[in-house]
Amino acid sequence: MKVLSIDPGIGITGFSIIESNRALITLKAYGTIRPKSKDSLPIRLNYLYKEVNKLLDQFSPQVLAIEDTFYSNNAKSAMVLGQARGSILIAAAQASITVHEFAPRKVKMSVCGNGAASKEQVSYMVTKILKLKEPPRPLDVSDAMAVGLCYINQNRYHDWSNKRINNT
Amino acid sequence: MKVLSIDPGIGITGFSIIESNRALITLKAYGTIRPKSKDSLPIRLNYLYKEVNKLLDQFSPQVLAIEDTFYSNNAKSAMVLGQARGSILIAAAQASITVHEFAPRKVKMSVCGNGAASKEQVSYMVTKILKLKEPPRPLDVSDAMAVGLCYINQNRYHDWSNKRINNT
Repeated sequence: MKVLSIDPGIGITGFSIIESNRALITLKAYGTIRPKSKDSLPIRLNYLYKEVNKLLDQFSPQVLAIEDTFYSNNAKSAMVLGQARGSILIAAAQASITVHEFAPRKVKMSVCGNGAASKEQVSYMVTKILKLKEPPRPLDVSDAMAVGLCYINQNRYHDWSNKRINNT
Repeated sequence: MKVLSIDPGIGITGFSIIESNRALITLKAYGTIRPKSKDSLPIRLNYLYKEVNKLLDQFSPQVLAIEDTFYSNNAKSAMVLGQARGSILIAAAQASITVHEFAPRKVKMSVCGNGAASKEQVSYMVTKILKLKEPPRPLDVSDAMAVGLCYINQNRYHDWSNKRINNT
């Protein structure tokens, strides 16, 4: 099972590709998508859409995992985020992959055991779980990894200590 | 100048195609796009994207006019609306047409002379301006027409009474 997990944003979108077999988790790729801030909104959204399509083409994940972000407390930022999310969800629909949404609290609970964990705590735990040499930067990337791990955790595994981690 | 104007929504998206030449406004098409509510969110967004693409292919408008909806007072509805908007803006970017956004108050002011006009007042005035036999239904369609008329009004014309209206 290969999971594309995304932390969406119009400025910076973090992503990771995590593959999970029975006893092995492999981090295949990770990074950011950064539309140019000087471009118009439609062009930035289309850039995001195209970059997600490239990831789908390159890695053929079966699943998109993304935070369910109905929890924003600001309508303007929710609108901006919604537009970025829409771009990503269309790419997923066109690739016919399933989309799994997780509440932010659930993601934090899954990797930190604490639904109110900070982004830094999430980064720390993701670094431990995936046995990375150093914390991925920026935090958008560790947030994306956390969503992917949450999906994998929910669907099969309940104890990270039983998993062998492979970094390619 | 042919304008595609859209009132976006994940349930119902209203649209109109209005052509404006020097002394003539022609309503070329109007209607709604209604993704099936039983479908998943990504599939509904992709349906909206594809239907907007069909309009772009069929009518080749030079402009997309859409409300600037940073004024929602509810983060959840702003997120949902943002996703629908994102789908439409990507289609516009891919067709390389320019996007013009208008504040809701400005649209109402343009067609009703009152920035706080109700949707029913907008519908009434749109029906008058475009010389329709009856008000377009649902109100999403008249809202879309109002945005298109706002664009045309802003860009050339300041007095509807000077315009000849042609209904095809």
